[in-house]
Amino acid sequence: MSRIDHRPSSGGTAHRASRPAEALSSLMGPPGYLDQIFCAPLPCAHPYQTNGHTMTPLILNLLDLSTPEGSFTRHEPDDLLIRVDDLGITRGDGIFETAEVLHGVPLALEAHLARFAHSAAMLDLPAPNLDLWRRVVQDTARQMADAEGTTAVKFCMTRGIEDNITAPTGWALGFPAHDATEVRRDGLDVVLLDRGYRHDVAETSPWLLQGAKTLSYAVNKAALREAERRGAEDVIFTSTDGYLLEGPSASLIARIDGVYITPPPSLGILKGTTQGDAFVALEARGLTTRVDTLKVDDLASAEALWLCSSTRGAAPIRSLDGTPVPVDHEVTEQINGDLDKRRA
Amino acid sequence: MSRIDHRPSSGGTAHRASRPAEALSSLMGPPGYLDQIFCAPLPCAHPYQTNGHTMTPLILNLLDLSTPEGSFTRHEPDDLLIRVDDLGITRGDGIFETAEVLHGVPLALEAHLARFAHSAAMLDLPAPNLDLWRRVVQDTARQMADAEGTTAVKFCMTRGIEDNITAPTGWALGFPAHDATEVRRDGLDVVLLDRGYRHDVAETSPWLLQGAKTLSYAVNKAALREAERRGAEDVIFTSTDGYLLEGPSASLIARIDGVYITPPPSLGILKGTTQGDAFVALEARGLTTRVDTLKVDDLASAEALWLCSSTRGAAPIRSLDGTPVPVDHEVTEQINGDLDKRRA
Repeated sequence: MSRIDHRPSSGGTAHRASRPAEALSSLMGPPGYLDQIFCAPLPCAHPYQTNGHTMTPLILNLLDLSTPEGSFTRHEPDDLLIRVDDLGITRGDGIFETAEVLHGVPLALEAHLARFAHSAAMLDLPAPNLDLWRRVVQDTARQMADAEGTTAVKFCMTRGIEDNITAPTGWALGFPAHDATEVRRDGLDVVLLDRGYRHDVAETSPWLLQGAKTLSYAVNKAALREAERRGAEDVIFTSTDGYLLEGPSASLIARIDGVYITPPPSLGILKGTTQGDAFVALEARGLTTRVDTLKVDDLASAEALWLCSSTRGAAPIRSLDGTPVPVDHEVTEQINGDLDKRRA
Repeated sequence: MSRIDHRPSSGGTAHRASRPAEALSSLMGPPGYLDQIFCAPLPCAHPYQTNGHTMTPLILNLLDLSTPEGSFTRHEPDDLLIRVDDLGITRGDGIFETAEVLHGVPLALEAHLARFAHSAAMLDLPAPNLDLWRRVVQDTARQMADAEGTTAVKFCMTRGIEDNITAPTGWALGFPAHDATEVRRDGLDVVLLDRGYRHDVAETSPWLLQGAKTLSYAVNKAALREAERRGAEDVIFTSTDGYLLEGPSASLIARIDGVYITPPPSLGILKGTTQGDAFVALEARGLTTRVDTLKVDDLASAEALWLCSSTRGAAPIRSLDGTPVPVDHEVTEQINGDLDKRRA
């Protein structure tokens, strides 16, 4: 971020560009203009708990995947439903998706289902019956239509019982999502952390499952704890050869020279569902988006950065490794406003 | 293995060196001597199922970890005991150990407990009360004293319930281990697979949890499936910079110039419990062991290779990437005989 003129923040309130077009042209504007429109507070204690999604569950549907058509039944959310020798818990051997729910409707559901099927294929799991999964996620979401605030549905499929694999284990869990208002307004303190892999590892070594959304997320959780140790709340993973990847549970969007850029799934990262909808929204506003590789050095010319995920929407990054990052509040509000207008 | 004189096998039976000392001096012996003592069949279909440990469970103890002293209670092995929002299953966020049991006694238990505590520390989990875990593993093992064949105890600790972490979840599961007779006799067809990390990643990037035995084992299972696709049954992981690491669930021992060598935990690999006992046994026989780095190129001078794990003991490698590897049956039998004589 060194090429950006930052104002050292001392608790100042955030200013906003009056129109995104102004923000986009800001790098061409007079010196000091960035000071006016971007004001990222220094890293500080922040009430958003990266490591503890609000997950007090509301609705639980358990699937029976022993037949091709399958079925599902309602259970109490705190029911004990899993054996200790389920490969989901003994080996993290399964996949998941989390869809945001608004007014009882799961958002970006088709994108989530497509990614779910992609993850299943990468893990050599049985292809999920997407009609069934669509119905169970929709049913779970519908049951939360009257819940206060935003909710979400997490749906999971494991390989089944160890050494006695007759059918996958599957469920859909509805829960109240964390209120994203604050993080969307205040932004995230983020650190760069090495993911340890080259950028091309998904192509050279597919058994490393990079790009699959698996239940083996211990490293993602450990990275968030490392971020916390460094006084931050979230992470952008980098490849060993300097490419920007994604967050532990979010996609990266960078605006450079007015273009909104996200790294490609070929780097072994997830195809972002929320990022995808954000790009649709940005394009509808006449803005330019691009799926392209980004290197760590490109951060120096980034005008703004976001981490996009189902339950937070587009969360602006306000500092990176302790250095303030410009926050474009207006564009952030517009993206999230557009995201919140989705109905499926 | 190119420097070793292999006999192309066509179903020939295995020959044995009469004494290990002879095998050790074999590289100095007359040409063709290796042919006589080493006879590795070519890769072929093999009944040992790497991907499906026999896990039909026998005994299950569930821990209550809500107090410092803790306690445990017996359950039916197929009881449903886990919530779908346990971090063990939603994030693979936990640790485990598997100890072999002979005559109702868990082997290498102290080494397993020490590694369990080490893994817990690496994941920032509460330090396990080792007195409690020792008791529950011993109890689980004792209940299987009359079981036919070898048994094992797998013990696991997860971080607890997502967003409502009051205590870790823990259990010990006793199960009949796969009969290792055949694999110890016939050996394993193994492939080298890139783990994707540099050899020093455990030091540079501890959040990648290399060297912790976590429940996030989806990559290990995927690597075994890749091995199967290649007509093999097991894997030796390599670092991106050419170091030999370990198997997905086993430690590597290579004999080079008569010295038994295993790679060091500083490479981000597990400290092998069975390998540790195998080294004690080898040293007791007057043989030389060493913990040292090994590079892929060193395989060319390896006189024999083993993958060591709790439930298989020392399994000789009979082929690597399709190339026959000399199997030292006598030393293998001696190591496993010594391992089977352990009583704790």
